[in-house]
Amino acid sequence: VAARAGGSVFFLTDYGLTDEFAGVMRAVVLRHAPGVSIIDLTHGVPPFDVRAGALALARAVPHLGPGVVLAVVDPGVGTQRRAMALSVARARDSGGPHHFVGPDNGLLPWAVDALGGVEDAVALPWSSTFSTAVTGATFDGRDVFAPAAARLCLGAPLADLGEDFDPGTMVRLAAPVCSPSAGALEAEVLWVDRFGNVQLAAVPDDATAARLGSELEVLTAVVHRAQRVRSFGALAPGALGVVVDANGHLALVCDRQSAATVLRVQPGDVVTLRAPAPGSSSP
Amino acid sequence: VAARAGGSVFFLTDYGLTDEFAGVMRAVVLRHAPGVSIIDLTHGVPPFDVRAGALALARAVPHLGPGVVLAVVDPGVGTQRRAMALSVARARDSGGPHHFVGPDNGLLPWAVDALGGVEDAVALPWSSTFSTAVTGATFDGRDVFAPAAARLCLGAPLADLGEDFDPGTMVRLAAPVCSPSAGALEAEVLWVDRFGNVQLAAVPDDATAARLGSELEVLTAVVHRAQRVRSFGALAPGALGVVVDANGHLALVCDRQSAATVLRVQPGDVVTLRAPAPGSSSP
Amino acid sequence: VAARAGGSVFFLTDYGLTDEFAGVMRAVVLRHAPGVSIIDLTHGVPPFDVRAGALALARAVPHLGPGVVLAVVDPGVGTQRRAMALSVARARDSGGPHHFVGPDNGLLPWAVDALGGVEDAVALPWSSTFSTAVTGATFDGRDVFAPAAARLCLGAPLADLGEDFDPGTMVRLAAPVCSPSAGALEAEVLWVDRFGNVQLAAVPDDATAARLGSELEVLTAVVHRAQRVRSFGALAPGALGVVVDANGHLALVCDRQSAATVLRVQPGDVVTLRAPAPGSSSP
Repeated sequence: VAARAGGSVFFLTDYGLTDEFAGVMRAVVLRHAPGVSIIDLTHGVPPFDVRAGALALARAVPHLGPGVVLAVVDPGVGTQRRAMALSVARARDSGGPHHFVGPDNGLLPWAVDALGGVEDAVALPWSSTFSTAVTGATFDGRDVFAPAAARLCLGAPLADLGEDFDPGTMVRLAAPVCSPSAGALEAEVLWVDRFGNVQLAAVPDDATAARLGSELEVLTAVVHRAQRVRSFGALAPGALGVVVDANGHLALVCDRQSAATVLRVQPGDVVTLRAPAPGSSSP
Repeated sequence: VAARAGGSVFFLTDYGLTDEFAGVMRAVVLRHAPGVSIIDLTHGVPPFDVRAGALALARAVPHLGPGVVLAVVDPGVGTQRRAMALSVARARDSGGPHHFVGPDNGLLPWAVDALGGVEDAVALPWSSTFSTAVTGATFDGRDVFAPAAARLCLGAPLADLGEDFDPGTMVRLAAPVCSPSAGALEAEVLWVDRFGNVQLAAVPDDATAARLGSELEVLTAVVHRAQRVRSFGALAPGALGVVVDANGHLALVCDRQSAATVLRVQPGDVVTLRAPAPGSSSP
Repeated sequence: VAARAGGSVFFLTDYGLTDEFAGVMRAVVLRHAPGVSIIDLTHGVPPFDVRAGALALARAVPHLGPGVVLAVVDPGVGTQRRAMALSVARARDSGGPHHFVGPDNGLLPWAVDALGGVEDAVALPWSSTFSTAVTGATFDGRDVFAPAAARLCLGAPLADLGEDFDPGTMVRLAAPVCSPSAGALEAEVLWVDRFGNVQLAAVPDDATAARLGSELEVLTAVVHRAQRVRSFGALAPGALGVVVDANGHLALVCDRQSAATVLRVQPGDVVTLRAPAPGSSSP
């Protein structure tokens, strides 16, 4: 595998910004690769929530330029879980990231798939020779992942970082629930954003497959009435809408208030969209 | 209009840092303008609070170097509100930002005024040819504003980005309340900062116009006694003070505790400062 | 003192990220030193908590490359406390930061000591000639500290920034409590991180000095049973463990839940570790 150096480090964790964890990792990347640009995607993934991290990463990667994705949501740190670095099969075509670094727990595969899949995979060694480690390292982000990402930015061949393994053995998360049937669409809540919008696993084709029109019911614990709209502004105050969001997903929204609060849903809940029952009143 | 390229992108939104919104916009700027410096001013503007964003931007811009201000607090996203890019009239003199990019909803004008006013204004087109858009774009920050800011950093002439319009037609917010009269000064709360300091719309000349001395009362729901002081340290524990803050505004403060909590005020409340009533006791 | 220019600005404050304080300081650094890399260590130090800031800085500095540490946790801003810049005695050997800038209130010395101690110290003047100050400056971070850090990055000699003073007169914080005795180890809680792990002032040698084995009791208000383990994964659900953390400290942890919540402790509390009482049952 030839080295494809350069670009930025795209950085995502569940570390938050209150402690200095993310800051120290930024400094370690820059110490090993002076002058590289570090782009924080987010450090606000809920603690230990690998699924939420994997979804955020998959949403983000189509918009990234060339570089290395460094992602750490790692409840298994300090156990026997594999630390890994991956090269991307179609990196030259996409103009996007050429490598990924992170734990082998399902965090990375969806995002890599979105860019064309894995080319090669290596397992990173436990104790890094290029670490600045002190005793008692439970901080693999600082001591293993950040130096590996920096080396890939500098053009090190992937094979220099660890032992090859079969990408087919990577841990993968269960696919989100999305079942269209005649007149109903059952779909997992993927994401509740800062504004309270509720992203579903469904895309517009799923609504078509379920033969849904522009008037909808939303079933959670209770039934909500909704409308297919093009933008938030088309909704009356308090009205529930279904839009196509910026990732091409269906999303439940209200205008300037939180649809998640109105619906009392959170990521992982399953939502069913269906045509209104005959005789039910318009919203 | 000649291109004035270079400098940094100064970035302010109400997106927060928990979702990847701001991170993806950073990546999009860097993809279109590799090597540019991106300075996060803040992403902590309260959701949809255009007024709070406009005030934060106006406080920040006198301290910025050359570059492009990219500001997005945009409750009207997806509606017919105008997306715009502006050039600054006296950019060469100020050494500060030369362009602004954001929605036409009142967010930008106060900050541009602080730098000398608008030179030229263009409306950005709805769907950007330089976008990496997928279907269903409700994310103008990523697909419209970030690429426009990147192009201006690279030296594109403003006229290349969209159709000219008359800057006199820009949406402007109502001016903050600030009414000095003999012995009293009524002033809107502009900002409660992390430390609980309460910034008012008044400046020291307003206190002079109201003939206020160094002993003051502060009227909200109840009357508070305050002192004009030069620094927090001059206040006794629990005492309320009036200082000139780092933006040249009057601010109500306590030493190492939150004046906003003591006063039970928030931005938008109106506060009156007046000389103590005769016979009232000293603090 | 010869100038040792270059490197990054490593930036730590208690300003949070909701207001634009940290963003404006970043812009001021870049305005004075175009092209410099600014690494945010954290801005999440609790407001006014100099001790928490000093501890975060001391944990971070061993991992930083060359540059200037800019740290502001400054409850005494606007009073007569000294503003200072320091050079590091063994900067050439460490490959780490060569200068520190911040208030003289105990925030910096532990971190500087971790790099070999102070070489020279100067007091920064009250009003900076290179400031963009408006009237009423209570924002020394923007007007004094950020420009000073930028000048040091550009290679200005330390002596150009202010008057020399004896580093022995710097304010120093009280050392954390850590008292091993036969069978017990009393240690201050230094840090509760995002994941709820409770870092103690003790290191493994202190546990050895206290003749502690692998079964422990943890005394706060009540007695908790704990185990010495190598990683979180070795703990049963709900079990309390003692690990060596990534800074070489003993830390109280649970697997995927907050040890701080279980123990009801916060920084500054004192925790005693001791061997289990004879006859007490295993966990």
